[in-house]
Amino acid sequence: MLSARNQLRGTVKTIVLGEVMAEVAIELSTGETITSVITRGSAENLDLRPEDEVTAIIKATEVLVEK
Amino acid sequence: MLSARNQLRGTVKTIVLGEVMAEVAIELSTGETITSVITRGSAENLDLRPEDEVTAIIKATEVLVEK
Amino acid sequence: MLSARNQLRGTVKTIVLGEVMAEVAIELSTGETITSVITRGSAENLDLRPEDEVTAIIKATEVLVEK
Amino acid sequence: MLSARNQLRGTVKTIVLGEVMAEVAIELSTGETITSVITRGSAENLDLRPEDEVTAIIKATEVLVEK
Amino acid sequence: MLSARNQLRGTVKTIVLGEVMAEVAIELSTGETITSVITRGSAENLDLRPEDEVTAIIKATEVLVEK
Amino acid sequence: MLSARNQLRGTVKTIVLGEVMAEVAIELSTGETITSVITRGSAENLDLRPEDEVTAIIKATEVLVEK
Repeated sequence: MLSARNQLRGTVKTIVLGEVMAEVAIELSTGETITSVITRGSAENLDLRPEDEVTAIIKATEVLVEK
Repeated sequence: MLSARNQLRGTVKTIVLGEVMAEVAIELSTGETITSVITRGSAENLDLRPEDEVTAIIKATEVLVEK
Repeated sequence: MLSARNQLRGTVKTIVLGEVMAEVAIELSTGETITSVITRGSAENLDLRPEDEVTAIIKATEVLVEK
Repeated sequence: MLSARNQLRGTVKTIVLGEVMAEVAIELSTGETITSVITRGSAENLDLRPEDEVTAIIKATEVLVEK
Repeated sequence: MLSARNQLRGTVKTIVLGEVMAEVAIELSTGETITSVITRGSAENLDLRPEDEVTAIIKATEVLVEK
Repeated sequence: MLSARNQLRGTVKTIVLGEVMAEVAIELSTGETITSVITRGSAENLDLRPEDEVTAIIKATEVLVEK
């Protein structure tokens, strides 16, 4: 069990691989997209592919609020 | 316009004020909750209150992926 | 499986609870200590206690290098 | 209005585009430079160009102090 | 020498101590204020006091851009 | 002296340079590896090379806990 408060389930739509980083677009059930940037090495270790069911995880201290 | 890729609309449910930090629970349209920790000063500057319509903003580099 | 590249096993030594945040000191096998700050709510959800075996998890983009 | 406590006005000097990430150098009125790394997609969405007036935004929890 | 690209010199104006966290307001030469949130333990280790000359350090991946 | 609570000594094993970012693998005395992603510009400013003695620095607010 992880301390991170925010865990959103979704489906990988696209993955863009750079030399060092990878950008992963995750579609939530609402149709909204969460974009994550991880290392290319992590994307390869996870063997991330479109249609994978994944969880986007975000520590509460990283969330800004706009009103 | 902000560079942050992730911007999720929601409604403030609860705010807990500590001496330095404040925890804000934001309910999304899906019923899921996003928890944000900001400074107490920011919560006061924004005059955050339950039922406020807000946006949770998250930089893509802060999002982990679990598969 | 998590995308975060850095996962260090250790033992909880102390937990300090504030109103919103909690500080957790984790001793590694080397005797070094990793300090984590999470929400008090997370510490309670995890039911963190001294002597618990835990993993400190750190995204690669959060690691600075000093030379 | 954003919760982020640190908002510094400046002028874009240079933008370097990688496949996934982009590095933006922002000159403050003091002549100091703030470097930001965002996704290439964000840089393109914002249509960032040299001489643009922008604001560098930093959450207080991301600021280290050296004494 | 630190990898962090952003290092701004300033003077501590105020310190607010919570049980776990501390908020430090740092005035730059421009009169702008940078707010940092660190652990109370760090503030005590550094023996931070008003009028201390300090450096605010920010990793480039933590800087958002607004245009 | 830095406010960051987590400072782990190690030796650079590999550096991968992208156009904007660089990935640095740092081996700790335990044989575990810490991966850091910094800007390519920082890696060049530090003149990072394999076998360099370095310190991996991590702010406590960036550390998740898994139990």
